[in-house]
Amino acid sequence: MRLSEHVTSRQSQIVLGLDPDPSRVDGGAMGARDFCLRVIEQAAPSCVAAKPQLACFERFGPAGWAAFEDVARAASDAGLLVIADAKRGDVDATARHYAAAFLRPPIDALTINPMLGTDAVEPFLDAARATGTGLFVLVRTSNPGAAELEDLPLADGRLWHEAVAERVHAWGAALPPCDSGLSSVGAVVGATVPERIARLRALMPDQPFLLPGVGAQGGDPARLGPAFGGRIAGALVSASRSVIYADDPAAAARDLRDVVWGAWEAVAG
Amino acid sequence: MRLSEHVTSRQSQIVLGLDPDPSRVDGGAMGARDFCLRVIEQAAPSCVAAKPQLACFERFGPAGWAAFEDVARAASDAGLLVIADAKRGDVDATARHYAAAFLRPPIDALTINPMLGTDAVEPFLDAARATGTGLFVLVRTSNPGAAELEDLPLADGRLWHEAVAERVHAWGAALPPCDSGLSSVGAVVGATVPERIARLRALMPDQPFLLPGVGAQGGDPARLGPAFGGRIAGALVSASRSVIYADDPAAAARDLRDVVWGAWEAVAG
Repeated sequence: MRLSEHVTSRQSQIVLGLDPDPSRVDGGAMGARDFCLRVIEQAAPSCVAAKPQLACFERFGPAGWAAFEDVARAASDAGLLVIADAKRGDVDATARHYAAAFLRPPIDALTINPMLGTDAVEPFLDAARATGTGLFVLVRTSNPGAAELEDLPLADGRLWHEAVAERVHAWGAALPPCDSGLSSVGAVVGATVPERIARLRALMPDQPFLLPGVGAQGGDPARLGPAFGGRIAGALVSASRSVIYADDPAAAARDLRDVVWGAWEAVAG
Repeated sequence: MRLSEHVTSRQSQIVLGLDPDPSRVDGGAMGARDFCLRVIEQAAPSCVAAKPQLACFERFGPAGWAAFEDVARAASDAGLLVIADAKRGDVDATARHYAAAFLRPPIDALTINPMLGTDAVEPFLDAARATGTGLFVLVRTSNPGAAELEDLPLADGRLWHEAVAERVHAWGAALPPCDSGLSSVGAVVGATVPERIARLRALMPDQPFLLPGVGAQGGDPARLGPAFGGRIAGALVSASRSVIYADDPAAAARDLRDVVWGAWEAVAG
């Protein structure tokens, strides 16, 4: 995954979250597919990656999976990196199957859940190494209740998600970097908790951060400067509902791109 | 989910893990499907439930998803409860889609990941309530590295997974019980850590435990008596590789059923 190269050439750190909700998008699996293809066409010029949400496709069964594959291919054809947002995590024998399911063209990266620990993540690391793909590991999520278990204070003074962050840094060190010194193993960090970002950046100096939670979830993209860690692709800002359901998705993506790019330029100096 | 009724009528606490591995099962999605249908036919008489592993089907894309649906239907037709082993977990808007994908006939229950906390679990609870299905929440997994993050000691003296266990108990209290006082919200607890089971049973008195890790992963089914909590369906023992790849899956399932039933009878007195 040539992440910095993509961000530089596309002049954008925006990830287009493709979460077609059947309460807003008619037509079942094919309706979701057509909706996503249209949004990709409209918003791609202001984005560096697309992030299809597997849940929105799985609910349609086999037809949904076929739609997911069409959407991933269309995003890739539009010049976007493709991040499969599946948040998989299971014991090693099972993780190998998930890695085989997702870490292959046209998919460039996969979101995974770290709860089961290193041996359950290793099959994803092995597959990422073999295929030149990347991972984004959940570290501190963007939902209001994330604090409940992720922020529990440990006996040694860390918060639980800081222990996760240290593992993510170690996992990343085991893989060749993607480019410009950025690790192939990134971190999902909610844009809703800007007060935690500097600390997480210190724990994960080389991880690209995938930041959901702007727009509908309330995160302020203008406050994300510290997330970059001084690297142009250090922070990728994901937006879904606020772009895909906008009256003008092209304009919504462009506006968000400009705010985030401005936050980058302010810290790049 | 009438869990105790099923265990009583089938005289078994065994969950047939259906994890067809393409390195051992030829023929792609249809090969995996046919293999599972054959194993169900052979082993079902000694089992109370089947647990198809989504990863093994997803790796075949749309055809794999169709195979999963055939396998789930066949297990249900054979009189087994169907536990979709998908370990999903995501923010609430996304969790709603996963709940719609899985908490519907012929599926009786779904495994989920608790890391994101209560608000991310609520859509699954709502769907389980509406459809009369159940959940099994990861609490302490069976893999060798599970201790790394799940067993981290908290500042208040608990282990992290014990905090998860307390949440699972609370989540279960919000749903009508399945039967015999057992909660519709169960817990995944590795059979590989018998030394933790009594403590987890105390924290989750009403949860059915789904215990993976016997057989290939080394857990001893004869040591699981304390897991039952005095209820016939308090402990469901899952086995996959040690049954499905046995020379005689029917005999392997029957032997495991007898050992676990013996462990139950020993504690039932």
